[in-house]
Amino acid sequence: MPAPGTQILIETLPRLMAPCDVAVVGPTYAEHAAAWGRAGHTVRPVSDIAGVGDARVAVVVNPNNPDGRVRPAQALLALAETLQARGGFLVVDEAFADFEPVESVCPQVGPGLVVLRSFGKTFGLAGLRLGFAVADSERAAALAAALGPWAVSGPALAIGRAALADRPWLAANAAARAGDAARLDRMIARAGGTLIGGTRLFRTAAFPDGPALFRRLGEAGIYVRRFAERPSQLRFGLPADKGEWCRLSRMLR
Amino acid sequence: MPAPGTQILIETLPRLMAPCDVAVVGPTYAEHAAAWGRAGHTVRPVSDIAGVGDARVAVVVNPNNPDGRVRPAQALLALAETLQARGGFLVVDEAFADFEPVESVCPQVGPGLVVLRSFGKTFGLAGLRLGFAVADSERAAALAAALGPWAVSGPALAIGRAALADRPWLAANAAARAGDAARLDRMIARAGGTLIGGTRLFRTAAFPDGPALFRRLGEAGIYVRRFAERPSQLRFGLPADKGEWCRLSRMLR
Repeated sequence: MPAPGTQILIETLPRLMAPCDVAVVGPTYAEHAAAWGRAGHTVRPVSDIAGVGDARVAVVVNPNNPDGRVRPAQALLALAETLQARGGFLVVDEAFADFEPVESVCPQVGPGLVVLRSFGKTFGLAGLRLGFAVADSERAAALAAALGPWAVSGPALAIGRAALADRPWLAANAAARAGDAARLDRMIARAGGTLIGGTRLFRTAAFPDGPALFRRLGEAGIYVRRFAERPSQLRFGLPADKGEWCRLSRMLR
Repeated sequence: MPAPGTQILIETLPRLMAPCDVAVVGPTYAEHAAAWGRAGHTVRPVSDIAGVGDARVAVVVNPNNPDGRVRPAQALLALAETLQARGGFLVVDEAFADFEPVESVCPQVGPGLVVLRSFGKTFGLAGLRLGFAVADSERAAALAAALGPWAVSGPALAIGRAALADRPWLAANAAARAGDAARLDRMIARAGGTLIGGTRLFRTAAFPDGPALFRRLGEAGIYVRRFAERPSQLRFGLPADKGEWCRLSRMLR
């Protein structure tokens, strides 16, 4: 089912379930844990699928943001089955899957598995607000009822439909972004960074003095993502054009 | 606070309150009662403010859809005060207020009063998905948290901002739509209809044989709104251009 962005689905999913124990495999996109917490659930951050324990609900971002870690579909499906057996389910957020050689679990959704897919990241149209929950019909209907009719804008429907049907564009851009990511990795290495991981749309690396580099970049008008609990790490988005590439390259000398 | 359309606020408001008795003053836009019911509240349709009784929450659409009835601000504010005293609140849906000579209660919002304002009806951009809750800061924050960050699209923010600042456009179109409404009233009268009421964007009338007229119009490709419980009544939207005016006029001879 479509929604005005994936974020509102991240907010809504927790409100469709009575308070329970939720394991969020991380470190990852912080809004998952925050949304389950806001809805009254008990949230436990875990560092791997093995840590999910007896939680009723688990959240895995695949590939993960910010470290790009990819979990095999087989492991995710086994976890979904375990959770379903105890009346829970697994949320797999495939926000960054479009450009990656990752096996989607969308075809396997059911009562124990819901998948979130984003639109704006891949197509560079985050402000259009379009995202999807791929779910069994009962959960999809509950999500749709929570959002009400007409939640997705006309422009998002028309543009989304055209863009998602354009497979050649997706293939060409997946290849181009792989080249961009490799270029960014070279710049990061030259600046003394150690690559942690990433996807073709962002790269995360550790630096000898992350906070100082964050400040220097910020003073030059370049915003990179930092992490309160891992101050050495910075996440770089892809520069948008030749000018931005040059500007970042100068800073990472 | 802005939202991707008013409808999602109609869905979300009931989910922020523990189940209680809700009075919906009607007949009116059916989604209010439906949304409160879906969220587990006990919904009672009442025909006037006096019927609200000891409900915790009341909903009034002002001006009302489909009959255009306008309630004085003073009566609404008195009701809001009563509801607030018992820990409840009044929802005033001013979806059709922009073009009407109706006194908005927006300036008086507080713990006992929340106002919904639409954008797409007035500006003919329903598909853009933009609507607002005008509320006290606590309720506005709760609504914002339920929708999450970035719920409203970039186009909606940019277009909404420009359109809402264009007061001359609003004044000119309010006058033009008043002329349209009067023209539609003359055509309805000529076809044997008795005007029930309306706003400058729609007119509701009773016909000797409403169902037959609904069918005839439908067969000609003209959709008007009918009401299961009041089969003699039909609600007409404004035709969009000269061609549509001519087509409707021919059918209402």
